[in-house]
Amino acid sequence: MKTVPVGVSNRHVHLSQEHIQVLFGEGYNLTQAKMLAQPGQFASGEFVNLVGSKGTIEGVRVLGPARKDTQVELAVTDSYKLGLKPPVRDSGDLKGSPGLTITGPCGAVTLAEGAIIAARHIHMHSADAEGLSLKNGDRAKVQVNGPRGGVFDEVLIRVSDSFVTEMHIDTDEANAFGLANGQLVGIILK
Amino acid sequence: MKTVPVGVSNRHVHLSQEHIQVLFGEGYNLTQAKMLAQPGQFASGEFVNLVGSKGTIEGVRVLGPARKDTQVELAVTDSYKLGLKPPVRDSGDLKGSPGLTITGPCGAVTLAEGAIIAARHIHMHSADAEGLSLKNGDRAKVQVNGPRGGVFDEVLIRVSDSFVTEMHIDTDEANAFGLANGQLVGIILK
Repeated sequence: MKTVPVGVSNRHVHLSQEHIQVLFGEGYNLTQAKMLAQPGQFASGEFVNLVGSKGTIEGVRVLGPARKDTQVELAVTDSYKLGLKPPVRDSGDLKGSPGLTITGPCGAVTLAEGAIIAARHIHMHSADAEGLSLKNGDRAKVQVNGPRGGVFDEVLIRVSDSFVTEMHIDTDEANAFGLANGQLVGIILK
Repeated sequence: MKTVPVGVSNRHVHLSQEHIQVLFGEGYNLTQAKMLAQPGQFASGEFVNLVGSKGTIEGVRVLGPARKDTQVELAVTDSYKLGLKPPVRDSGDLKGSPGLTITGPCGAVTLAEGAIIAARHIHMHSADAEGLSLKNGDRAKVQVNGPRGGVFDEVLIRVSDSFVTEMHIDTDEANAFGLANGQLVGIILK
């Protein structure tokens, strides 16, 4: 079993450059509050509000840099509060996902689609993937130990030379398995 | 693999007869809003507020009938909101668990202990347990299928002639595995 550290993703938003301008003002650029484990990715200092049919969640962090398409990543717990039913999807696969309204200090954006529950996944450096005979797009099983232990099935393996090897789960998954940032979990080898 | 239906437990409170009197008034008895799957157990029509060091959760349902000791069952998500760190425990095992304040229409109770994260468990009728060679207190593994599939380890088996066979998980666990009330999961036989 090969161990990897866990990174727990709280609900967050990726914004297109166009939507950054609408929400934060013409010519605005995201500020970098904290670098994340994956190179170039950062927690910005900017926050937005999410508005759904049943409620609002305030103060949701924007992650940078800007992306081609705006994407809202929620835990199922969050989706109930907003009144949305987002599908479990790999990042970037937004087709047919529900829309919602995002508000910022300078304006609002109403998305036709873009809210997803991010599928559990492992960012894996190419060298690690080769060592484990895993390739980009594979699905693996991951063992968690402890009083709320168990196995994650259907863990998407994403491989790149630029990745730091790390498993990403959301807050519901972390809570259900008793996991916190940096804890180690084990990839079950076939 | 033997399948059992899932029952998802939202945060809830069991109250002692003494605490029912304090919170709802002298001589008060819980009303029965909805019978639960386990014989004699019911969702009452009464609600309380939970007050922790970091926040309050309003409108938490009381389950009946009254119990010997007051017990508050939370999801980890709830515990963050309240500012508590409850342990994962089997029902009734409250020793050393954190306290909190419960308020009702007629008064308030401050517990020295009583807040837990309920350990995932299966209520199992004796005949089913015998058929599966399981006995009260065993821990089993349970398979969940679907896009958020996986395995629950450390599932406590509780056996009684009076139980209806059903697996109880909390809302974090349901959300993490994409489960809803009544869905079937499979006990992995040794």
